Amino acid sequence: MPTPATLVALLHGPDQPGLVAKTSGWIYARQGNILHADQHRDMEAGEFFQRIEWVPAGTGATQEAAELRAHAAALGMTARVALSTHRPKGALFVSKEDHCFHDLALRWKAGEYAGDFACVISNHPDLGEAARHYGLPFHHVPVTPATKAEAEARQRAILREAGTEFVVLARYMQVLSADFLRECGQPVINIHHSFLPAFAGGKPYHQAHQRGVKLIGATAHYATAVLDDGPIIQQDVVRVTHRHGVEDLVRKGRDLEKLVLAQALRWHLENRILVYGNKTVVFD
Amino acid sequence: MPTPATLVALLHGPDQPGLVAKTSGWIYARQGNILHADQHRDMEAGEFFQRIEWVPAGTGATQEAAELRAHAAALGMTARVALSTHRPKGALFVSKEDHCFHDLALRWKAGEYAGDFACVISNHPDLGEAARHYGLPFHHVPVTPATKAEAEARQRAILREAGTEFVVLARYMQVLSADFLRECGQPVINIHHSFLPAFAGGKPYHQAHQRGVKLIGATAHYATAVLDDGPIIQQDVVRVTHRHGVEDLVRKGRDLEKLVLAQALRWHLENRILVYGNKTVVFD
Amino acid sequence: MPTPATLVALLHGPDQPGLVAKTSGWIYARQGNILHADQHRDMEAGEFFQRIEWVPAGTGATQEAAELRAHAAALGMTARVALSTHRPKGALFVSKEDHCFHDLALRWKAGEYAGDFACVISNHPDLGEAARHYGLPFHHVPVTPATKAEAEARQRAILREAGTEFVVLARYMQVLSADFLRECGQPVINIHHSFLPAFAGGKPYHQAHQRGVKLIGATAHYATAVLDDGPIIQQDVVRVTHRHGVEDLVRKGRDLEKLVLAQALRWHLENRILVYGNKTVVFD
Amino acid sequence: MPTPATLVALLHGPDQPGLVAKTSGWIYARQGNILHADQHRDMEAGEFFQRIEWVPAGTGATQEAAELRAHAAALGMTARVALSTHRPKGALFVSKEDHCFHDLALRWKAGEYAGDFACVISNHPDLGEAARHYGLPFHHVPVTPATKAEAEARQRAILREAGTEFVVLARYMQVLSADFLRECGQPVINIHHSFLPAFAGGKPYHQAHQRGVKLIGATAHYATAVLDDGPIIQQDVVRVTHRHGVEDLVRKGRDLEKLVLAQALRWHLENRILVYGNKTVVFD
Repeated sequence: MPTPATLVALLHGPDQPGLVAKTSGWIYARQGNILHADQHRDMEAGEFFQRIEWVPAGTGATQEAAELRAHAAALGMTARVALSTHRPKGALFVSKEDHCFHDLALRWKAGEYAGDFACVISNHPDLGEAARHYGLPFHHVPVTPATKAEAEARQRAILREAGTEFVVLARYMQVLSADFLRECGQPVINIHHSFLPAFAGGKPYHQAHQRGVKLIGATAHYATAVLDDGPIIQQDVVRVTHRHGVEDLVRKGRDLEKLVLAQALRWHLENRILVYGNKTVVFD
Repeated sequence: MPTPATLVALLHGPDQPGLVAKTSGWIYARQGNILHADQHRDMEAGEFFQRIEWVPAGTGATQEAAELRAHAAALGMTARVALSTHRPKGALFVSKEDHCFHDLALRWKAGEYAGDFACVISNHPDLGEAARHYGLPFHHVPVTPATKAEAEARQRAILREAGTEFVVLARYMQVLSADFLRECGQPVINIHHSFLPAFAGGKPYHQAHQRGVKLIGATAHYATAVLDDGPIIQQDVVRVTHRHGVEDLVRKGRDLEKLVLAQALRWHLENRILVYGNKTVVFD
Repeated sequence: MPTPATLVALLHGPDQPGLVAKTSGWIYARQGNILHADQHRDMEAGEFFQRIEWVPAGTGATQEAAELRAHAAALGMTARVALSTHRPKGALFVSKEDHCFHDLALRWKAGEYAGDFACVISNHPDLGEAARHYGLPFHHVPVTPATKAEAEARQRAILREAGTEFVVLARYMQVLSADFLRECGQPVINIHHSFLPAFAGGKPYHQAHQRGVKLIGATAHYATAVLDDGPIIQQDVVRVTHRHGVEDLVRKGRDLEKLVLAQALRWHLENRILVYGNKTVVFD
Repeated sequence: MPTPATLVALLHGPDQPGLVAKTSGWIYARQGNILHADQHRDMEAGEFFQRIEWVPAGTGATQEAAELRAHAAALGMTARVALSTHRPKGALFVSKEDHCFHDLALRWKAGEYAGDFACVISNHPDLGEAARHYGLPFHHVPVTPATKAEAEARQRAILREAGTEFVVLARYMQVLSADFLRECGQPVINIHHSFLPAFAGGKPYHQAHQRGVKLIGATAHYATAVLDDGPIIQQDVVRVTHRHGVEDLVRKGRDLEKLVLAQALRWHLENRILVYGNKTVVFD
């Protein structure tokens, strides 16, 4: 049977009695059918978080989404509502390393994602042919310290033109400015090749090898103006020993980076992530 | 602040629209405050599962529990309701191996469990002194093929007298009969030292070594009349290599068994497990 | 600096005093420089295993390899010797599922392997274009019960023509006959989508879902005449919950299968695996 | 059959051709029987490391140990040689937290360690009775900023008297001074409750919760004068989610700390660890 069109709402706001009942009651009263509902309360912060997915009846889905937002506002909550029929478009930023790029493109081709890639932007020309092979427009935007502002303006123009709603930094080896992040107005998911907050900054595998750690990690997070400090979405680690040189860490790390970034994007596109402060709630 | 008394309900029954709204609405209408709510629907089986924890108001908790069961029944669901003020008592069955026994006893002493051990039953006298050191009455009930029925009768009498509501087989090296399981009328949690269904039956570490597997496992499950086939609660594995002999597997396995059994019991006592058919839903 | 040409010997035979000294002494006496040496003795079986990698001096590498084999034979041991300058060629067998295929092809392109793929053989035409994109000759060899013997003869002919020394079954959904395995005369690495020996045979993810396991696994092994029973090379697992349906297991399993098969092939091509009986020694 | 007395040598020094052959040849020439041999070369540092275990013949083991040291010195290497018949004694330092303490004591009682605990030293009286229950002398040595030097002098006196050769800080909540570490003249193994170098210093679980990490870790390392910076022996992590408050991290962390510290001590007592610079080689 075909999956029916659904709505997914991510709500959060100050905790108060009855929030679960009020929202599920609101949906039920409109003959909606709740498929999944998950909630969390942060006891310390007194904050309530909810993800609810339902099949709406009656009025169209867009109308229902607007009304749910009004319902949430009346309860003092912020709501983001997504329609399963809407597939957001996103941009892939890459440099020369291609493992995350291929991994994401193949998963997209295999139908693993509830969204689409619309273009690839790179500061190097290397992955142009591969991008085109996947049917993705490729934009080579070189970046130097002197031309950074200009390059970022061009990147933003490409995003606007492509109508993207999210950006994935698939081992893009440039730091995006605070200006870019603010003005692009869309979430930017980055993969950092260490178990943050350990080994933030450059050359994390070299740092890890130097320190003699027994596990190396990778961290997917939303990029913020502070480097490697944004809300963490997903992390994983793999065991290493004294036998592994820096090159082995790099190779082993590639598999980690692919898995961690792929999972983070999947959750993002399924509207499973709520950011609050510098942390995330992931309704897995 | 002191944690308020709460109720935890585990409900399940045929899926139908409005179940989330109806139960959360029922609690809210009675001024209850929902702390946690988690639900699951098995799309294939058309079954709905819910765990809901709330602070009741108005009538006493016992009364509220009874009424919730009636509410669930009216919706065609079965409900089990537990009061956080009630700490169930349980029995530990052991033989000679003491690692799971010490681990559970120390966790209990450390306050990790929402229940208490009331007694230790063993077919060997070896752990008597250790049990008494933890303040636990120790019952030595030898078992031979000839005396098994009699021994099980005595075990059931001990459970009755101690008022237990659950049994943990902490490496108890005897198979309990179908009669015992049925007549004792309480859940029996077992730890099997393999990744079931691989290596069911006796000497699983020898079987694993023989087969040359690269991971060994442990499985906590509810005991049923069919050996090693009951609903699985928790499983975990650890990596092994050709360097590990059977003795190493046994030693490594001990750590696995402790962790897996301890986690299963924790979930059981926090009323997080719903059994249906031969599977479990664990609201973690 | 360029890595010097090395030799890798895998030796095994009945244990006896002095084996480590005799072989390392033999190499040293010929002015060879040992880079890595690893050994293992199976105490129960009284068997000695060794992997030793060295830079030979004097006579050419091919000559040294032959002499090492004679040296080993004189000690009652069997030796396989590989030259780092020799890159073995292999065949990829696939059906319709493409995740392992792309993963292996991309790793090969990225230079992760000490060998090369020479061709792709499939019982379906689906992956033909993708294979050619990677520069790999694609052979569509349909298989039906009636034409199986004939199809296998053709497959063997393709292997002979391509000069392959190993075969990888990258989710090839056909069982190779005992005849094929014997006559093709080269190791065949298979990926099975379960934690063997659990869920051998067909539809392992369905079996796993049915049984309600909390971990699913994948197993890379050398194919033998007995289905899913060959020497295990590598295994791994990933956690699943009641929330995961069969489709989720399939999706999560794909990542496992890729990693486990990729690792097994890597070890095979680096001459790290010794098979004895139905088990492997992996000098990691 | 009884395990024969063995010698274990840990050697390291500048790499040069023939080291493997020379040492294995030396042992073989004396009719020793090598049971295990493992080596590692750090290509960057040009350093060679070896662990070799053998059954000596002829002269007594003590004599053989001395001669092996001389043999190593002649090759420019440093050697530490241990006799399997010698069981080193160690001291456990504890404060109030008892999970690592019980875990280590029970493993010791279960025969998992190639050494013995000789005494327990604590800055609090709380674990006195438990220590005595395990048959371990308990020394209550209070520590205040004003009395720290004095307290450490007393601690060193206790170690001297007990004849200890190693110290384990089993969640000892005091920083030992550089003076103490130098003057006690024996390895001190510490367990830090984070994945170092992330969250060094105090209250690591609070730091981890604050940062919103998705994995928490534990690290066993040799204590050095720089806090939480000594050579790492073992690390492990466990997954956490937004549902876990600080108390959950603490509870989950306890299991990690036990496993990681237990493993580190096991390796130490089996003479599997070579420290060089700020890193370790662990011959697992």
